[in-house]
Amino acid sequence: MDATRLPLRQFDQPPGMIDLGWGHPGPDLIPTDGLRRAAARTLHRYGPDALGYGYAAGPGPLVAWVCDRLGVVDRRSPVPDDVVITAGNSHGLEQLASLLTAPGDAVLVESPTYHLAVRILQDHPVELVPVPSDTEGLCVDSLPAIVERLRREGRIVRLLYTQPTFHNPTGISLAADRRRSLVDFAQAAGILIIEDDPYRELAYDSAAPPSLWSLASAGAVARLGTFSKTLAPGLRTGFITSDPTLTRRLCATGVLASGGGISHFTSLVVAEFAASGDYVSHVATLLTAYAQRRAELLSALARHVESRATWAQPAGGYFVWLSLAPPRDAAATLPRARAAGVGYMPGGAFNVPPHGVNGSLRLAFSRYAPQQLDEAVQRLAGAIDGPGSADRPRG
Amino acid sequence: MDATRLPLRQFDQPPGMIDLGWGHPGPDLIPTDGLRRAAARTLHRYGPDALGYGYAAGPGPLVAWVCDRLGVVDRRSPVPDDVVITAGNSHGLEQLASLLTAPGDAVLVESPTYHLAVRILQDHPVELVPVPSDTEGLCVDSLPAIVERLRREGRIVRLLYTQPTFHNPTGISLAADRRRSLVDFAQAAGILIIEDDPYRELAYDSAAPPSLWSLASAGAVARLGTFSKTLAPGLRTGFITSDPTLTRRLCATGVLASGGGISHFTSLVVAEFAASGDYVSHVATLLTAYAQRRAELLSALARHVESRATWAQPAGGYFVWLSLAPPRDAAATLPRARAAGVGYMPGGAFNVPPHGVNGSLRLAFSRYAPQQLDEAVQRLAGAIDGPGSADRPRG
Repeated sequence: MDATRLPLRQFDQPPGMIDLGWGHPGPDLIPTDGLRRAAARTLHRYGPDALGYGYAAGPGPLVAWVCDRLGVVDRRSPVPDDVVITAGNSHGLEQLASLLTAPGDAVLVESPTYHLAVRILQDHPVELVPVPSDTEGLCVDSLPAIVERLRREGRIVRLLYTQPTFHNPTGISLAADRRRSLVDFAQAAGILIIEDDPYRELAYDSAAPPSLWSLASAGAVARLGTFSKTLAPGLRTGFITSDPTLTRRLCATGVLASGGGISHFTSLVVAEFAASGDYVSHVATLLTAYAQRRAELLSALARHVESRATWAQPAGGYFVWLSLAPPRDAAATLPRARAAGVGYMPGGAFNVPPHGVNGSLRLAFSRYAPQQLDEAVQRLAGAIDGPGSADRPRG
Repeated sequence: MDATRLPLRQFDQPPGMIDLGWGHPGPDLIPTDGLRRAAARTLHRYGPDALGYGYAAGPGPLVAWVCDRLGVVDRRSPVPDDVVITAGNSHGLEQLASLLTAPGDAVLVESPTYHLAVRILQDHPVELVPVPSDTEGLCVDSLPAIVERLRREGRIVRLLYTQPTFHNPTGISLAADRRRSLVDFAQAAGILIIEDDPYRELAYDSAAPPSLWSLASAGAVARLGTFSKTLAPGLRTGFITSDPTLTRRLCATGVLASGGGISHFTSLVVAEFAASGDYVSHVATLLTAYAQRRAELLSALARHVESRATWAQPAGGYFVWLSLAPPRDAAATLPRARAAGVGYMPGGAFNVPPHGVNGSLRLAFSRYAPQQLDEAVQRLAGAIDGPGSADRPRG
């Protein structure tokens, strides 16, 4: 069988295309050499213990390091019993949805939200109920009425899924007062918050806000963290921080009871990389590089797109959220953009439920060098102005 | 945080104990050096592509090699579209159960069976219905009446879970005529067979029988294969072979659509190890070593246990299934055995549903060197004859 004709990657860039549609780390910013050394050290240090069945909650070295690291980049350190290692946030969300939902449950989801998280939740027989958001993030004030209505209808409201820090797709972080009121409301209402927190380390202007998990009592929040955005998504390694009751339930699921830790070897590689100091210096490299890419994307937008759209500077993460001036439509513009050699994610994909008509779009600045970002925005500007656009001179 | 006080492994052997209760590969038989070299070569060859988001069905090099390898160790090669890479058989079973079951479905499970597969299935709101087995494996003749009864009761019979080759715990392989009739029956009844096939490569006397997957039409069988028993469970890498309709549905689940291939980096390490020829030579080493361990366990049983139990020689896999002569009870004997420094899995754990009272027990010969196996069986014989046993002289 000739493997060269089979795909290797999730995303293969067509020649000439600059696709800002994918929230992937820059390939040039994946620490391949450092991870090669970490893998070798892992196998020297642990021998077959690195390759046997691992502890269900994840190997001690990574659990301990996660506890320590969150003491630096969050308001509060977990204890080891609060932590379960996952195969990344997608897998962690799937685990939580499998364990915690029953058919017919209502699951609250901020809208817009990460579209593939919606796909994961939709793999379960639950009803997704959108919660609106604005420029300060999730509209926490709207929650009581939504939950009251659902409960009047006899629905069980089990979970709330949110990305409060450097949101995908909008880049917004939930305002401080809303964090506190969201946690208070969810605790009082008996709703578990699933806090998707992949971008915490990528804070370009000041420290990331405290996680909802760090603000809440035990049992109120399960936070999903990952090494996909800071290290390498192909390692499929992340973590949940919650509370000992929930982590014990996760470890008692058949998959972890049978197969042991879901990312045993790669977890030890991450822990070895971190223990050497490479993680901290690599995150410093990322902060410089991604802040530069963010700056270049924003200045290119100012140069080339100008008044035909509005956007805000995200304080962290991978994304700029662009709102096209009416009557432009992001989905309708996409074929022209692709023909011009630039890709993006139309904003309608992030609505709950998704719908195509939307003036917004998501640009990921993570994957490309600054000069490519400028070129991409020039192409995008041309597509916005292309046939059928409002600014096109008409005959 | 001091990581040394946190667990690393699924199973930590207490000092002095020889625990035949765990179906783990021998730590001395995990190819640590070869995998270290394969990891280094993987990162040299693919660079950041080995660490980015991977193709949802798994990376081409491993998919292609699985297709080729099954042409050698099974009756039929899959095509790439038949294959999805998993994070091991536990994860593969969880994926299939999540995707294919609805609340209230009946799932047929051979009894006895792998107890942790039952745990995985029980994480879903289905009813497990036992199907009896005998010395030739699953009693296929009993299936029509069981299915007819369930359907009369209005139940949907969705799946049948079985381990037809070198069965865990019994070591039995399903007889050839039963393989054919099982596949025919399931196809006619519209029941998907989940064939758990972890031990195919570990055939000590002659080639493993053809898989059910290889005998069936497309859509009738999903077979779970893994590198946990032949290479290293900590890599969490295995595969499903089924048909393009099912593999497409698996790849469209949110977890794979979002995170990409679930074991991307470790899959490439396995493929690299295999491409070098190391896999084939390693399996040859395993066959010699495990056949020797099997022989030693069996001869030790003949020397020390004799007429107080019966057993059959397994033709492959990790396990010998011991039936104690009545009225001995395997669960009641276990505390004495552990006190004597030997562990095993009492057979009742493998019943569907599990129940403690049983004269059988499972011994794994995979994890220990021959001299330890002899010592373990001596301890076991002492425990069988200990206080309260039928053979103990009474005063």
